[in-house]
Amino acid sequence: MDACVITCAMSGVAANRDQCPGIPYTPEDYAKEARRAYDAGAAVLHIHARYADGQPSYRVEEYRDITQAILAEVPDVIINFSTGAVGIPMEERVHHVAQLKPELGALNMGSMNYAKYSSKRKAFVFEFVFSNPFGDIRLLLERMNSVGVKPECECFDTGHIASVQPLIDMGLLRTPVQFSLILGVLGGAPPRAETLQHMSTLVPEGSTWEVIGISRKQWSLVAAAASLGGNVRVGLEDNFYVPSGEMAAGNGDLVDAAAQLVQLSGRTVASPAEARRILSLPDPPDRSGLR
Amino acid sequence: MDACVITCAMSGVAANRDQCPGIPYTPEDYAKEARRAYDAGAAVLHIHARYADGQPSYRVEEYRDITQAILAEVPDVIINFSTGAVGIPMEERVHHVAQLKPELGALNMGSMNYAKYSSKRKAFVFEFVFSNPFGDIRLLLERMNSVGVKPECECFDTGHIASVQPLIDMGLLRTPVQFSLILGVLGGAPPRAETLQHMSTLVPEGSTWEVIGISRKQWSLVAAAASLGGNVRVGLEDNFYVPSGEMAAGNGDLVDAAAQLVQLSGRTVASPAEARRILSLPDPPDRSGLR
Amino acid sequence: MDACVITCAMSGVAANRDQCPGIPYTPEDYAKEARRAYDAGAAVLHIHARYADGQPSYRVEEYRDITQAILAEVPDVIINFSTGAVGIPMEERVHHVAQLKPELGALNMGSMNYAKYSSKRKAFVFEFVFSNPFGDIRLLLERMNSVGVKPECECFDTGHIASVQPLIDMGLLRTPVQFSLILGVLGGAPPRAETLQHMSTLVPEGSTWEVIGISRKQWSLVAAAASLGGNVRVGLEDNFYVPSGEMAAGNGDLVDAAAQLVQLSGRTVASPAEARRILSLPDPPDRSGLR
Amino acid sequence: MDACVITCAMSGVAANRDQCPGIPYTPEDYAKEARRAYDAGAAVLHIHARYADGQPSYRVEEYRDITQAILAEVPDVIINFSTGAVGIPMEERVHHVAQLKPELGALNMGSMNYAKYSSKRKAFVFEFVFSNPFGDIRLLLERMNSVGVKPECECFDTGHIASVQPLIDMGLLRTPVQFSLILGVLGGAPPRAETLQHMSTLVPEGSTWEVIGISRKQWSLVAAAASLGGNVRVGLEDNFYVPSGEMAAGNGDLVDAAAQLVQLSGRTVASPAEARRILSLPDPPDRSGLR
Repeated sequence: MDACVITCAMSGVAANRDQCPGIPYTPEDYAKEARRAYDAGAAVLHIHARYADGQPSYRVEEYRDITQAILAEVPDVIINFSTGAVGIPMEERVHHVAQLKPELGALNMGSMNYAKYSSKRKAFVFEFVFSNPFGDIRLLLERMNSVGVKPECECFDTGHIASVQPLIDMGLLRTPVQFSLILGVLGGAPPRAETLQHMSTLVPEGSTWEVIGISRKQWSLVAAAASLGGNVRVGLEDNFYVPSGEMAAGNGDLVDAAAQLVQLSGRTVASPAEARRILSLPDPPDRSGLR
Repeated sequence: MDACVITCAMSGVAANRDQCPGIPYTPEDYAKEARRAYDAGAAVLHIHARYADGQPSYRVEEYRDITQAILAEVPDVIINFSTGAVGIPMEERVHHVAQLKPELGALNMGSMNYAKYSSKRKAFVFEFVFSNPFGDIRLLLERMNSVGVKPECECFDTGHIASVQPLIDMGLLRTPVQFSLILGVLGGAPPRAETLQHMSTLVPEGSTWEVIGISRKQWSLVAAAASLGGNVRVGLEDNFYVPSGEMAAGNGDLVDAAAQLVQLSGRTVASPAEARRILSLPDPPDRSGLR
Repeated sequence: MDACVITCAMSGVAANRDQCPGIPYTPEDYAKEARRAYDAGAAVLHIHARYADGQPSYRVEEYRDITQAILAEVPDVIINFSTGAVGIPMEERVHHVAQLKPELGALNMGSMNYAKYSSKRKAFVFEFVFSNPFGDIRLLLERMNSVGVKPECECFDTGHIASVQPLIDMGLLRTPVQFSLILGVLGGAPPRAETLQHMSTLVPEGSTWEVIGISRKQWSLVAAAASLGGNVRVGLEDNFYVPSGEMAAGNGDLVDAAAQLVQLSGRTVASPAEARRILSLPDPPDRSGLR
Repeated sequence: MDACVITCAMSGVAANRDQCPGIPYTPEDYAKEARRAYDAGAAVLHIHARYADGQPSYRVEEYRDITQAILAEVPDVIINFSTGAVGIPMEERVHHVAQLKPELGALNMGSMNYAKYSSKRKAFVFEFVFSNPFGDIRLLLERMNSVGVKPECECFDTGHIASVQPLIDMGLLRTPVQFSLILGVLGGAPPRAETLQHMSTLVPEGSTWEVIGISRKQWSLVAAAASLGGNVRVGLEDNFYVPSGEMAAGNGDLVDAAAQLVQLSGRTVASPAEARRILSLPDPPDRSGLR
C-alpha cells in the first residue's frame, strides 16, 4: 500500500466558468491545467472535452486537440477519457476512445437515480435517471477491447461493482480490473468512510481501485482511501473546493491537497511510470491514435 | 432483538405456475396460501394481485377480492401491497393502495439495472433499467400519506437507503422508517452477509428493516438477518426453493423454514400484534378501505 | 461455502453435573455423548478430560481412556484436545497432546481479562487474567509440531488473530491455519455478528475458521457464521441451552440444533471425511498414539 | 464531525534520548515541548513523568513540577495523566492523579500480550503480559471518581471496549465515555483502518473516541480517524517518525503533521475550549490540585 495514484478529473461537462473560473475550455487551458496538476502529483488525467466556448464536445476533434496540447506539455502522463453522457447516442460516446486510444476509458457500470437536493429550499436542484443498461456497457467494452483501451469501471454503488462478474465471465472484461468507487451522488453510495471501506472489499482479488468523492465530503473520502490503500481522484469535475472550503484556483490546488494528504498518511505519490505498473498498463503507452 | 417479523411475499408478477405450481392466482388460492403462511409464522403478507388466469393485475378489483379472501381466512394478518411495476402508469401503480388502504405499501427507493445472467449460456437471461425517479417516489409517498398507509422503503443498494434523507427532510417520509433491504438482483447489492451488515448500519436510528434475498442465496441472508437483529421476508415472489434446494410446494414451506431458522438463532417469531408494535403500525388496523 | 464443519465441545472443565446433568465424566459417558453428537452431525469432538468424579484431568491416562472409548463408538470422528488451563504447568498442559497425537490441538493465542458479570447483583461473578504469553504459545507449538498435531488457534479478539503473524514468519505455524473465533467472554470480543464478520476478514488468506459463541448469544453467532461461510462449534463446554432457552439434555441436542441451522441457511453438514479435506488434515488420520 | 481534538503524548516511559533526542526529561523540556505541540494544534497533553535523568517517575513531585511548568507556558491546555505501568503497585499508579487532579486520567481497560517482533531477527524484541484485571480497573475508577477526574478508557481491542459495560452498569463509569482506541501493538488490535472502523462502531452511543496508532502505521490510522469523525493522538510516546519516515525533532513536528492531515480531510483542529466541550469537561478546569 505504498505508492498512491492520483488522478485529476480536469473539467467535467456540467459546470462552467461562472461557477468556477479555473475550469479549462481551450486546448491551451487544458495544457496549463495539466502542467500544474502534473507538477502537483497527478499521474493520470481524466478528460471531458469542451469546445472553446466551454460547451461539452463528444467529437474526436476536440479530444485530439486537447490531448495533443496536454501531451506536448507533460508527455508521460496517463490519459483517461470519459465515455459517460446523458442523452448522447452510444456511438458518439465511444468514437473518440476508438480513434484516439487513450490508455484508460471510463465505463459506467450501472444505472441509478442522479440527484441533488437543497435542504434550504426543501427541493431537488435536479434529478434524473442515469441510465447505463448492460447492453450499453457491453457495446462500450467491445469497442475498448478492439482498440486496446483499458476500461476504468465507474461504480456508484455495490451493485455496480458486482456487475463486473458476468462481464468477466463472458470474457469481455479482463482482470485485473481498475475501479472507480464514486460516493456522494444522491441516488448512489453515500459519502461515508464506512461505505467506501465496504465497497473496497467487494472488488475482485487483485483489482485496483480509486475513490471519487463528489462535493464537500470529498476530502474525508480521500483520507479514507489513503488509509485503506486505495488510489484517489480529485479535480474540478468532482469538487471545486480545497479542504479549507475555499474555491480552488485550478486543478493544481486540488491535486496539491490530495498529494499532501497522501504523503501525510505515510504513503508516496506514484509517478506515471509507477502508476502504469500499479494499473497494469503498457509502458511505454501506445500513442498511435494521437498522432 | 428478540421477536422477528416474518413477511411472506406470496406471488410476485413475473413467475407462473409452469415454473412453480404453488403460486396463487385466484382469491381462493391466495386465501389458502395465506392460511399456511400465517400458521407457519408470517405476520405480514405482501401482495401482488393476479387475474384468475395468472396475469398480473394492477386493478383495485383484484386487489380487493384477494385481500378480502385472505382476511376472511386470517383476519389479523398485516396486509402489504406492492406498488412496483415496469411500464405501468404511475396512477395505476398506486390506485389500489389509495382505495384499499393496506397497512403497508411497498415503495421502490431508486433506479438500477435489473438483470439475470446465465453463466452456462454466457448470456443475459434478461436485462433492463428499473427506473424509479424521485418524481415517482414523491408522488407515491404523497398518495400513501394522504390515506395513512405506511411506506415500506425497498432498497436495492446503499444509495437507495441514503435517498430517504431528502424525503424525511421534506416531511414526506416520517420516522421511524420501515426498510426492505434487497440483495441478490444483478445490478443491485450482491447477496453477501457482509453487504447486508453494512446496509443495516445505514438505516436511520430507530428504523426497522427486513432482508429480502433473491434466489438461492436467500437462506444465507435470512440467517444473516436473524443474527443481526433484522426482520425477514420469504415467499414465492423471491425464491421457489426451500434451503435443501427442492422446490417449495407453497409459501407455507418457505415461511416454515424461515421461522425455524429464526428460532434456532435464539429469537422468537413475532405475532401480527407484536409485528404492529415493532413496525409502529396502528392496532387495530384501519380496514375501512376493504369493506 | 457449502459444507460446514460442526465441532462439539463435549465437556469443558469449569461446569459440573449439578449445573448441567448432561456433562460426561467417565469414558462411557463420553462415548455415549460422542455417539449422539456424531449422529446429529458433529465431525470433530473437542475434549477436556475428566476423572470419573468429574474433576478435570490433565493426565495422559484419562485422555487416552476417554478417546479410546469414543473411537470405539465412532471410529472416524476427528479428535481435538484442549491445552488450555489456568494455574497448570505448561508441561502438563501439553503432555497428553504429545503422547496421544490427536488430529487437532487447541492453542490459546493471547492474554485477556476473563470475567463474568451479574447485572442483577451488580457484581462480578468471577474475574481473572487469562494469561497466554508468547513464550507459552511457542512451547506448545513446538511440541505440537514435533508430533504432527495441527494447532487450532483460539482467538478471543482481533489481536489474537494478528498474533499468528510472527509465528508464521518464524516457521512455527504452518498455513493454512485453523482458527477458532471466540466471542462472548467478558474481556474478549463481544458476541455480535458484526464483530465476528470483522474478525473473519482478519484471518490470513486460505485459512479456515469456526465460531465459538459463549453463553446465550451462541445461537445468533452460529447463524452469523453459517451466513459468512464459517464453521461452527457448539457443546456443553460453551453453552448449556438449546435455542429456545431450555437446558440441553446432552451434547446431541446442541449439535442437532446447529446442524438444522446450518442446513436451513442453505449449506450442508460436513462428514468427518469432508471435514478432513476442509481442514487440511491427513486422511486416514494417524491413530498411532492412541493404541 | 467537524472539529478534531489532537492529543499529544509527549514522552512515554519506555524510550530514551539515545533513541530519540526530542523526548523531554526535565520540567523545562516538557514546557518547551508543550509550547510547540500547543502551537501546532494540540489541545490535550498526555503526560508520563520523568526524573531529570530520564527515568520514569510515578511520584507526585515530578508530575507536579512538570505540569506546573507546562501550564506556566500554555495555561489553557487540557492535562491528561497516565496511570499505566507494569510492575508498579496500584496505589503508586494513581497517587499523582488523586493529588493533582488532571482533567483526564488514562485507564487501561483490559489485559493482553504486549510484544514486539523483529522479522529480520526472527525473534521477539520483547514480550510480556500487560495485566489490567477488573479489580485494578475498579480501584482506579473509584479514585478518579472521588476527585472528579474523567477517565480516558484505553482500549487495545474490541473486548476492552465491551468491558466498559459492567462498569457503567455498576455506576462506576459515567457516560459519555471518552475512549482511546489503540492499534498496532502486537497482542492487541492490528493497525488497520478496517479494524479502527469496526472498533468505532462498538463505543456506546454518545461516546467520544481518539485513535492511538503505535509505530509506523500511525499516520494511516490518523487518516482513517480523520475520515471517520474521530479524534487523534500523536506524540513521541507512540511513534518517533513523521509521515515521510524521518525522525521527528520533537512533539511539535508530529502534532503539526496531524493537524495538517486533519485539515486536509476537511475538518478543523479543536482549540482547548472546543475540546472541553467535545469531551464534556468542565470549563474552566479545576486546577486546585496543581497549586
